[in-house]
Amino acid sequence: MSADSRAPADAEHFKAAFRHHAAGVAVVSAATAEGPVALTASSVTSVSAEPPVLHLSVSDGTRTGRALIGADTAVVHLLDADDLALAVRCADPSVDRFADTATWTTLPTGEPVFLGPRLLMRGRITQRIVSGHATVLMLAVDEVIDRRPGAPADVPGPLVYHDRRWHTLGETSRIG
Amino acid sequence: MSADSRAPADAEHFKAAFRHHAAGVAVVSAATAEGPVALTASSVTSVSAEPPVLHLSVSDGTRTGRALIGADTAVVHLLDADDLALAVRCADPSVDRFADTATWTTLPTGEPVFLGPRLLMRGRITQRIVSGHATVLMLAVDEVIDRRPGAPADVPGPLVYHDRRWHTLGETSRIG
Repeated sequence: MSADSRAPADAEHFKAAFRHHAAGVAVVSAATAEGPVALTASSVTSVSAEPPVLHLSVSDGTRTGRALIGADTAVVHLLDADDLALAVRCADPSVDRFADTATWTTLPTGEPVFLGPRLLMRGRITQRIVSGHATVLMLAVDEVIDRRPGAPADVPGPLVYHDRRWHTLGETSRIG
Repeated sequence: MSADSRAPADAEHFKAAFRHHAAGVAVVSAATAEGPVALTASSVTSVSAEPPVLHLSVSDGTRTGRALIGADTAVVHLLDADDLALAVRCADPSVDRFADTATWTTLPTGEPVFLGPRLLMRGRITQRIVSGHATVLMLAVDEVIDRRPGAPADVPGPLVYHDRRWHTLGETSRIG
C-alpha cells in the first residue's frame, strides 16, 4: 500500500471522505419552545425495527438545531425526488420554513408536518448523545404515516445527497 | 389528510418505510477476540467533523455483529460501485469473509482491511448505545486512508443500497 495517502483524521480529510458517501435525505420537524422548527438531515438511519428506533445527528450550530435537540418528540419525513424543493428550503438557515402556511399542517399530537412528503415517522426522542458540536438523537418511533398507500407504481425515486449534489435512483442507476 | 394510512409503528411498517430511504454502503472490519470480523453496513453516518466522529448501528443477532460490538477499534471502508462483490460477500453471514487471503491485509495497528476499497477510516469505539437488538457504535476517527489520492477522474460512483437493490450515482442520476 505504498501509494496510500494516510492522514490523521482532521476535519478536512474526514469531510472529504464522507463527501463520497451517499445518503438518503429527510426533513425533521418538531414543536419546540421556540415554535415549529424543521431542518434537512442526511443522517437519518434505522437502528432497529423491534422496537422501531432511528437515529440522526443534529448540529448545535444553529438555533433550529438547538431547538430540535431540546424537543420531546419529532417527525421524520423521508423524502422522494419530488420533495427536492422542500429539502433545499429546509437546508437554508436563512429561510423561514413555515412562512407559507399552505405547505404544512399540525398533527393532532402537535408536531408541524409538511404536506408534500409521502412517508412520515413520528416518535419520542429518548436519548441525546453529545459528540463535539453534534448531538445524536435516538427516536423511538410511535407512528408511521403513508400518505399514498397502495400506489407503488406512482412513487418517484428517493432523494439522495452525494458530494454536495442531489440525485435520485431508478432503473438506470441499478447495478449488480 | 383523509387518505393517509396511519399505523402504529410496528416492525413491518417501520421496515417498509425505511426501504424507501437510500443509504451509502460501507464494510466495517475489526480485530476481535473471535479473530478478524467484517460486515456490510448501510448505517454509517458522519456525526461531527470536529472532532471526527461517525456512528453506525450493528445487530447483535450474529456472531460477527456481537464480536464487532465488543471490539476496541474498527475500520470503516466506504464503498464505490466497483466494490459491489465485497459488499455482497460481507452481507452474507454464511460466507467466510477472510477465506481468500489475497483480498485483505492487516494494518500496522492490527485491524484487518480489504484491499479493494478506496477510502478507509480507522478509529476507536468510544460509546455503545444499546437499543433493542441493535447497538449504536460511536467511532472516534483517528486516521483517513485514501488509496487512490489525487485521481478523482478515475473514481467510480458510490455504492448505494435502496429497497433491497444496489445502485450507483453519476451524471444520469442527478436532479436539481
